[in-house]
Amino acid sequence: MPRYKLTLEYDGTEFVGWQWQANGLSIQQALEDALESFSGEFIRVHGAGRTDSGVHALGQVCHIDINKEFTNNRLKEAINSKLSHHKIAVLAAEKVAPNFHSRRSAIKRTYEYHIINRRAPLTIDVKRAWRISRALNVPAMQGGASRLLGQHDFSSFRASSCQARSPVRTIESFTVIRRGEKIYFTVKSRSFLHHQMRAMVGTLVLIGDGSREETHITDILNARDRQYAGPNAPPWGLYLTTVNY
Amino acid sequence: MPRYKLTLEYDGTEFVGWQWQANGLSIQQALEDALESFSGEFIRVHGAGRTDSGVHALGQVCHIDINKEFTNNRLKEAINSKLSHHKIAVLAAEKVAPNFHSRRSAIKRTYEYHIINRRAPLTIDVKRAWRISRALNVPAMQGGASRLLGQHDFSSFRASSCQARSPVRTIESFTVIRRGEKIYFTVKSRSFLHHQMRAMVGTLVLIGDGSREETHITDILNARDRQYAGPNAPPWGLYLTTVNY
Repeated sequence: MPRYKLTLEYDGTEFVGWQWQANGLSIQQALEDALESFSGEFIRVHGAGRTDSGVHALGQVCHIDINKEFTNNRLKEAINSKLSHHKIAVLAAEKVAPNFHSRRSAIKRTYEYHIINRRAPLTIDVKRAWRISRALNVPAMQGGASRLLGQHDFSSFRASSCQARSPVRTIESFTVIRRGEKIYFTVKSRSFLHHQMRAMVGTLVLIGDGSREETHITDILNARDRQYAGPNAPPWGLYLTTVNY
Repeated sequence: MPRYKLTLEYDGTEFVGWQWQANGLSIQQALEDALESFSGEFIRVHGAGRTDSGVHALGQVCHIDINKEFTNNRLKEAINSKLSHHKIAVLAAEKVAPNFHSRRSAIKRTYEYHIINRRAPLTIDVKRAWRISRALNVPAMQGGASRLLGQHDFSSFRASSCQARSPVRTIESFTVIRRGEKIYFTVKSRSFLHHQMRAMVGTLVLIGDGSREETHITDILNARDRQYAGPNAPPWGLYLTTVNY
């Protein structure tokens, strides 16, 4: 049975998140419905990672097994035609080896977080960025971010609901840059714990607004306790941008 | 009576356009309602230019006269607090001289048009860019755009409803650049005719996809007849970005 890798873009606003849930429509279910609608069979969608409700993706990846052979292009077009009433799009479909696994074969994931740092309410970027009114010191946030680089026990930045066996993760790069009123956080790691990005950004903002010192990051890591880190940044500023294999 | 200049951002999707219309809510009316709601009096809003329904603004400008004095910041916050249910925000409020006029004092306007050039449907950018599936040749479109530079009779790129006395306009700069799948058209001119941007972009796309030659632009200008130019590009890719004084 041929296996296909799909690269996906979506606006997470109107979904309960990546994963199937009883209380509303998930990205996974919308994709499975679309696949069933054109193939006539139930096809399980396996994602590279779960995104929370409201979190967006520019390059989420999943894999599927289908009984029938398709050209890459035909498969992409067929799924998109069935998804047209949802803000989900297949950017690429690619036949892959049967041992390819969207989650387990991934060697790197990139997340971006977008802040708009201004007093005025958002208009075009509503639900696409986190607006913060108070002044944020970007070099201080970059200083704090750099303390998260490398291998650490990220228990302090992990949701209580996180199902990963180990709280140890290795951050390859973490940059914080400002372009005008926008601030972009970009983080690369093989994998992330549940809520890790949002907890890291929420904590760095406390450094950016002067509530905490950069050195506080090291204390939080050492504490290995979620209550030491800052609150989660809201989901709507978060983008899963790339999964590398 | 003090006069204030307001710099505005808005998502044009849910409005009938800048100007008051009987068939729905305009940006102008939403602003006038907000001003009346906090000042208790009707205050006329004078815009630097009219944007069509669906067209966005990152830096539209208007002026208002108010009986009461406000600090710039207080006025901005007061209007924004009354606009919170609309996707309109006052980015800046500034007391100006009584002879300042948002439309007549403007010396330059900048519009941007955003195309996303790909097969896959849009998700995050729905109603924020024009998706075009077929391949577009950016150097050819830049070649056509350069033929529009300088002073010309733009009758061929003007809506029949346009109320300007003269069809002559002077384009200071017109750039077409690609960043990944996005194509940005940026045009600077003292002023624009009604639908001029959308007609110019719609025509350049015909050059980009190979339907027309670059030299066709000169023929269209010389014809001085709207039917020679291409169709209007849709409003949702258009942004009024800056008005200079």
